[in-house]
Formats: sequence, structure tokens, C-alpha cells
Amino acid sequence: MTNIKEIAQYAGVSVSTVSRVMNNHPYVSPEKRKSVLQAIDQLNYSRNINAIHLSKGKTNLIGVIIPFTNHPYYGAIVQGITKQANAIGYHIVIFQTQYEREKEIQALNMLQMKQLDGIIVCSRISEMKVLLDYQKYGPIILCEDTAQAELSSISIDHYAAFSSALEYVVAKGYKKIGYSLGRKKSRNSSLRTKAFNDIMNKYHLLNKKEWLFEGSYHIKDGEKLFQDWNSMIDKPEAIIITNDDTAAGFILTANKFGMKVPEDVAILGFNNDSLSEMLDITTVSLPLDWIGKMAVDLFENPKVIRHVKLDYTLMKRKTI
Amino acid sequence: MTNIKEIAQYAGVSVSTVSRVMNNHPYVSPEKRKSVLQAIDQLNYSRNINAIHLSKGKTNLIGVIIPFTNHPYYGAIVQGITKQANAIGYHIVIFQTQYEREKEIQALNMLQMKQLDGIIVCSRISEMKVLLDYQKYGPIILCEDTAQAELSSISIDHYAAFSSALEYVVAKGYKKIGYSLGRKKSRNSSLRTKAFNDIMNKYHLLNKKEWLFEGSYHIKDGEKLFQDWNSMIDKPEAIIITNDDTAAGFILTANKFGMKVPEDVAILGFNNDSLSEMLDITTVSLPLDWIGKMAVDLFENPKVIRHVKLDYTLMKRKTI
Repeated sequence: MTNIKEIAQYAGVSVSTVSRVMNNHPYVSPEKRKSVLQAIDQLNYSRNINAIHLSKGKTNLIGVIIPFTNHPYYGAIVQGITKQANAIGYHIVIFQTQYEREKEIQALNMLQMKQLDGIIVCSRISEMKVLLDYQKYGPIILCEDTAQAELSSISIDHYAAFSSALEYVVAKGYKKIGYSLGRKKSRNSSLRTKAFNDIMNKYHLLNKKEWLFEGSYHIKDGEKLFQDWNSMIDKPEAIIITNDDTAAGFILTANKFGMKVPEDVAILGFNNDSLSEMLDITTVSLPLDWIGKMAVDLFENPKVIRHVKLDYTLMKRKTI
Repeated sequence: MTNIKEIAQYAGVSVSTVSRVMNNHPYVSPEKRKSVLQAIDQLNYSRNINAIHLSKGKTNLIGVIIPFTNHPYYGAIVQGITKQANAIGYHIVIFQTQYEREKEIQALNMLQMKQLDGIIVCSRISEMKVLLDYQKYGPIILCEDTAQAELSSISIDHYAAFSSALEYVVAKGYKKIGYSLGRKKSRNSSLRTKAFNDIMNKYHLLNKKEWLFEGSYHIKDGEKLFQDWNSMIDKPEAIIITNDDTAAGFILTANKFGMKVPEDVAILGFNNDSLSEMLDITTVSLPLDWIGKMAVDLFENPKVIRHVKLDYTLMKRKTI
């Protein structure tokens, strides 16, 4: 049976180059890679990657858990993860969960079965104790502002970011303030709700439960949000919408109904994606690409548990 | 060493259930899956998935080659691929190429090394003959309107779709027509260019090379496209922009400059994503989610080479 030395000799490269090609390492010139692969073919080399994985205990795959692929927030994080993963010789396996617990468990099982070297959880469904059970099989990195200490995490300080957005709205003179979340029960949403309640108490402002909206994920949710807001008799004068796509959807729908932002209702968004820039949406800019990159850094250094918080910036534009 | 029968006995399930859990098959109840995994743990079962892959010759992974993850066009196709892949017990490995040939080759190499069971190419960089070289290692499915007969493909009829869009623009009375592509040299773009030239000839309309723009991928490219268009002395009166995000960017930028669409310049987009609906962009609706699903169908049935074309629809809205 052919071995790695014979392949190296046939291809006219070093043994370490052959090894790098087999492990899909990026730093191999295209010509050398081609020579090695041709040699493998020619010499009818029957070794395959799964044998390598068995012996090395590594697949060079990282699982990434997200609710949906087609969304600017998760798209930006995944882009950051992918770039950094590729730079260190890894590829990513996408787990699109639509918030179904079972799909998250599938990814964790693949980690247990050694088909993944680690997992980055961009939006968690399972309880923390479930994830902790799988920790022994490989690094599990959380993209959330977490309270626990056993799994590394990368996030922004969601309580502080939401507070500073709200302080800005209050400073602008608004008294009747509402807000819209994605999934109300997520860790990040809980922090935002706490921030909202604390600030409303601080300034003795009205805190009506009807002014807490949820289900804001996509641009079309903004259309629904506008209808819900518009049908209220007692409306908030300003709304913090925790993703720019939904904020954009709200604003464009308001315009269709002859309303102006901020004149008829003020809007503050989150994320600072390109659409918010084009629509001049006042928003909190989140370093999503960096969150992705740092998640991979944390994956690479699993021996030290770290909780990294990145900065956010309030982009003062025209919608409030 | 523990074997599958002992695990089944310990977990109180059938041997086929244990097998299904090990192959990450979706149709296992959460309780049974948990029992099996606990049994594997308890019995210190050292078999791992790579051994299974070696023996079965299957990884249940499909590689998906796209230029960028964070884009509505590719996001929609990937969403369709992911849903259908998950339904048949597969997961997807994302290869974000940014149009770099080397990244595409990495994916093909992983197919050769049996780390993937197949590849879906959403946007091809390598020459066809390169892909054909790898065909023997597993199914390679193209998402392009292809002229070759050896690899299955799923697409829309890009020549027909672009022609019908252009016929609509001409029927509306426009004589000075331009268009903007993504990557000029892609297969789909070549078909669109041919369609443009044929229609301009058919109606004896001016076909200025300055009125062919390229690099339209994202919403911010629409801003640049507007500046390029606006700086021309002899401008097209109508532009077909082959993705709605860029069309939206163009329109929003035009509005900022005090211009109206269609009054100052008419715009026709492509894709029919949610943003185009919100902005009332006249566009060609492409069944991207279905393209993704069908690509997985074709992957499942590799013995028959098929070229599937899906229908498109012209959504007549307000920008032309």
C-alpha cells in the first residue's frame, strides 16, 4: 500500500507538503497541491480522510449553530467565522435550526461523535446544562452575553448597549417609549428587557406591557410591527427595534401609509447593516464580523475560558 | 470492546435505533436518542464517526460553494439547500470563496478525500474541465444555466428571463437602456449579455458599452452605480440591475439626490427579495429557495444527469 513518502517522491515535494495537502491546509501553492493530488490518484492511494481523522482525532470542521442562514445579523457573524476559520485551515458546517431544539442537539451529537472539532453557538435554544454535558467532547463557544463561567463566550454587553440607546431616546425628550425584540426568551433579550425596565424606573416613565413587541427578525416583520403600532390607541412615540432590517421594514411601511419618521414616530435600530446606512437609520452598530472572528479565536484556545465583550457604537442618524 | 448490540440492550432500544443515532438520522425521538448517547458514554464506547464513515464510505455532508454568505441571493439558495439536506439526514459545509479559485479547489479536494459526499456549486470559478476531473469522487451539482451535459444542473433559463425583462422595458417605450451585472464573466452573465445584444439588435436600439455596468452584488454597490450613472453625460433612461439589493441601493441613493424612480430613471431588478417588495421594485422573481431544494434532489439521484430549469415571474411594480 502506498505511503506518504512515495507520494512525496512521485510529486517532487516534501513529506510535510503532502501532509498539508491531506489536511487541507491553506498554505500550499496550487501547483504543488495539484502535483500531490495527481500523485495520490496515480499511485491509487486508498487512504482517505476519515482514516486520517481517526488517527489524528481531528476533522478540521467547526459546527456553527444559527436560527436562519438568510439574515444580515447571522450572515455577518457567519461571514466573520468563515473568514477566520478558513485562515486557520478549518471549514464550517452550518446548522440552521429555525429555533428547533432537535436541530441543535444534532450538532452536539456530531461533536460527540467526533465529526466536528468544535461548535460555535450563535443563538442558543437548549438550556445551558445541556450544552455543558457536551463540553467534554470539544470546545463549545457561545455568542451571547452569558452569566455562566464554563463555556467561553464572545458578545457585546447587551445590557449596556440597550441602556445607552434608551438613554439617548430619553435625552431626546421622548416619554412614551416602546421596544421590539426578536425572541423574547433569549439571553440577549432578557438583558435588554432588564435594561428597559431599569431605565423606565430611573426616569419614572410609563412602562406599558403592550409597548413590548416581539418577533422582529426580518424586514417583513417591520410591516407587521407597523400595523400593530398603528392600530393602538395609545401609541409609543419612539420605538427601539433590535434589528435594522425590521426597523427598515417599519419605516418603509410607515412611509407607504403617508407617515414620516421621526416626525410621526421615532425609530432606533440595532446592527448598523448597509440598509440602515442607506435609510439613515439611527442605530447601535455591533461588530458582528469581529464577533465571528473572535469566536474562532476562542475555539482555537479552549484551555482558557474567556468571556470577551466587544464595543458598540451609537450611530446618530435621522430617524430619531 | 463494546458493540452495537450491547448499546441497544443497555439503552432499551433496537439495534436499528442505535444505528440511526450514530448516523445522525433525524427520525429518532429525543428520549431514545438521549438513552443511546448515555449508553455509549456509560459503556465507554470508543467507536467514533470517522470509523463509521470509513466503513460506510459516507459522511452525510454536502459541500456548498458560494462567493459570500451574507447576501440575499445566496442566502436564499443556501436556506433551500439546508432545509432539504436536513430533511434527508445531511448537513452542509459552507465554502465562502469570495471568487477565489483556491477556495473552490479546497472544497473539491475534500470531496476527493471523502470528507464530503457531494458538492453543490452555486457560483463557479474554475473552468468546467476542472470540475469534471473531480466528478468521479462524488456528485457535483451546478446552480447555473449550463451548456455542458456531464454534471447535473438546476437553474432558471437566464437568457429567457433577461429577454423577457428587456422586452418589458422596450414595450414601456424606453430607447436608451443599460444594465448591470454581478461578475461579467460568469455563465449566467454571459447569457444575459447575449440576451441584451440580441434584443438591442432586434429593435435597432443603441447598445453603448458604457451602459453595461458590473460589480453589482450588494446594496452599497447600488450607491456606486448611481454615482457612475449620474456622472454620465449621455445616460440610459432605464437600467436593468440584476440583483434587487443593488437596485434598492441605487433607488435609495437617487432619492437622496432628489431624483425619483421611475420619473428620472426607470429601474428593473432581479430576485424579488423582501426588500424589493417593500420598495415596490419591478423585478424578476426567481425561485431561489426551490433552486436550493432541487439541487439537493439532484445530489440524491446522481446516476441520472439532469438539467432542470425553473420558472421565473415578472413582478410588475412601480419602478418602471
